[in-house]
Order: sequence, then structure tokens, then C-alpha cells
Amino acid sequence: MDATKKNLVNNDFSDIMLNRHSYRKFKKDVKISNEEISEMLEEAISAPSACNLQSWHFVVCNTPEAKEKAHSVMMPFNYPQVDSASTVIFILGDTQSHYKYRDVWNKAAENGQITVEERDKVFKTFLPLYEHADRSFLEKDATLDGSMVAMQLLLLARAHGYEANPMSGYFFDKVASTFDLDSDRFIPVTAIAIGKPDEEYTKSVRYSVKEVTDFI
Amino acid sequence: MDATKKNLVNNDFSDIMLNRHSYRKFKKDVKISNEEISEMLEEAISAPSACNLQSWHFVVCNTPEAKEKAHSVMMPFNYPQVDSASTVIFILGDTQSHYKYRDVWNKAAENGQITVEERDKVFKTFLPLYEHADRSFLEKDATLDGSMVAMQLLLLARAHGYEANPMSGYFFDKVASTFDLDSDRFIPVTAIAIGKPDEEYTKSVRYSVKEVTDFI
Repeated sequence: MDATKKNLVNNDFSDIMLNRHSYRKFKKDVKISNEEISEMLEEAISAPSACNLQSWHFVVCNTPEAKEKAHSVMMPFNYPQVDSASTVIFILGDTQSHYKYRDVWNKAAENGQITVEERDKVFKTFLPLYEHADRSFLEKDATLDGSMVAMQLLLLARAHGYEANPMSGYFFDKVASTFDLDSDRFIPVTAIAIGKPDEEYTKSVRYSVKEVTDFI
Repeated sequence: MDATKKNLVNNDFSDIMLNRHSYRKFKKDVKISNEEISEMLEEAISAPSACNLQSWHFVVCNTPEAKEKAHSVMMPFNYPQVDSASTVIFILGDTQSHYKYRDVWNKAAENGQITVEERDKVFKTFLPLYEHADRSFLEKDATLDGSMVAMQLLLLARAHGYEANPMSGYFFDKVASTFDLDSDRFIPVTAIAIGKPDEEYTKSVRYSVKEVTDFI
């Protein structure tokens, strides 16, 4: 993973996490190369996923034409971010990730990362859970995986010297078709605008830990 | 937030994120204080959430009795983690977080963090989205928020010198009732076992960025 660190301009964990804020207006003249976006995604997919299914899929809108497509699925209150960001990355969940399941674990066994017995245990224990799962289970799992990788990407934006905004306000039913994806397979999770900020942030209020936690 | 940094034994962002692995066996004699868990949660809730609804709720199982409750809702393949971890934290989604919505934004306006006009715009734009939302929308939003805060917590475990494992294999329908929570309001998202590892990790295989990304 060391090769992916070359564009990390900030490696201060507590600064990256605790001073992260959502920005909604970015400097329009800033470009991020596809290569750097790939690096950020490479780092982001170190996120965990249920049974390592990696039920995530990315659509990168990094050209004016692609950003217009992104704009076309957004609710108007998200236009400022989308129209000024350097790039907009949609994160979708893959509800059919278990179709590739055997390939992943066969590869792990071939590479000697797990034993053949461990692989077979995975096949017998986890695979039936997915093969017999209903739609809502698969959607939930894909949403969970997609959200975790999205959180990593938000932090990575800062590590690479940018700021970001996660957006949930878009027309869910338009996303897959706009990006020529199978809407049975791919479900929208979130979209992230990334760029150099062109505004001060608004610090948002949080409930206290006590208000949202039960120590049982 | 500086006061919360006192237990951060690792502040190397790329190490924390890129060298994070799931551990499934922990040293049984390690205890984490409720105070330190609260600090980790305080840091974790810097995560973003849709409309700042913060639709997350934590149940911390940090006593032998509470860990038995955690065990009781798990699928057997997660017993090793739950039975050896220092603490197990369930993250649930709050599908009724918008009931408190006005309070949060009123407080932000009172604190001068946003103007009254900005607050009213939020009330007029976002609040109706939630008040008219169906169950699946609310569950999806809560899953998204809960997963993002869970990802932060996984990273924070490392920053505090521990390792962790996120677990999705438990009986969803048992969680709320086992923890005396309203199952209409709270939905399980994930559970995280945290402790000092007592095994070598297994490096898991990932698909390449190219396989999971469309640059459109």
C-alpha cells in the first residue's frame, strides 16, 4: 500500500477525522486527476465488508459531461456542491456481489492466505446465508458496505488535501439508469462531492454520547 | 476536541486505515474503561449523517453480563470474537431521529452556528422529506448513518491501540428486544468487537479498483 501514499498531504489522523466538516461550495478551477481518484479509491476499499463481499461500486463523474449527469439526478439543494466540486463519486451497493463470492475465496486459498479447509468453511457457512437471502437483506448489506467505504473516502479526501460533502438528496430511482447500470443489481448508497473548499464551514451540532448510548 | 485525544496512542492516518484488519480472537484479560469507550464514541460521532439527523444509537456491552447478552443474539461463527473481546458495541439505526430534528437545528440557531433563515430553510426543505418518508427510506438512512459512524469507530479502535471486528452475523430480530429497545424505532446496523488481538490477522483479498469502478 506504500505506493498509494504519495499524494497524502495530511497524515494526522485526529486532524483528518475530528476536523472534517461538510463543505458545499468548492473552487471551480481545481482538477483532480483520474489517477489520484483511483488512488483514493484503492485506499478506500481497504474498508471491511460483510463476508468480504465488497458490495460496493463506484461511478466517478470527473468530466463536465459526467458532472452534468450527476447534476441531473440531484435534488436542487445539492446543485451548489455538484456544480462546483472537482469530482463527484457515486457509491452504489452491489446486491449481486455474492455471485462472485466463490472466485474471491478461491483466490485467497490459491494465494495461501487461507487454507482450503478455511475456504470450504466459508462456502458452507456464509454462502447459503446470501443464496437464500431476501432482497431487503441484500440491500441492507450492500448499503452497509457502501457506507463504510464512503466514510473512508470522506477521510481520504482530507488526507489528499481536499474537502468533501456526502449527499443523500438525489432521486434514487434515476441513478442506476442514468449511469447505464442494472437497477436490479445496483442500488444507490450515497454520492460524494470532492474539491478545494470555497467557503467557511458550518460546524454542526451533535447530540452528546450520553444521549445516544446505553451502557448495559 | 483536543481533550478527547489523550488515549490516542496512534495518530498515523495511513497506518490506521491501510493496516486495519479484522481480528476474531482477543486477549481475554484486557479491560477497556467505560470512560475510554465514551471517548471513542465522542470521536466517532464526528461522522456525518443525512441532514445531520445522527440516526445512530449505541449499546455498549462492557460487563460479563452484557457480553452474555451480546453472545445470545450472535450467530455461532461470531462467538470467538464476542467471547474474547474486551467490549462489544452494537450500533443501531434510529428511524425516528427526525422527531428530534427541530431541537437540533433550533440549538444550532441559538448557538449562532447558523442563522434563523438557514434554520427555517432546513425545516422547509428537509423536514418534509422525512415526515413523508416510508419505512424503507428511514431504514436506509439510519443504516447509512450507523455504518458511517461504525467505520469511524473501527479506525478509532486502532488509534486507541486496539483492534476490532465488525460483525453482521447475528439475529437481527432479537437485537432490540434483548437490549430493551423499541424494535419499531431501532434497527440493528452492525456490532463491533474491540480488544487486543490474540492471533495473527488474515489479510483479505480485494477486487481491484478497475473491477468496481466506472469512470464515465
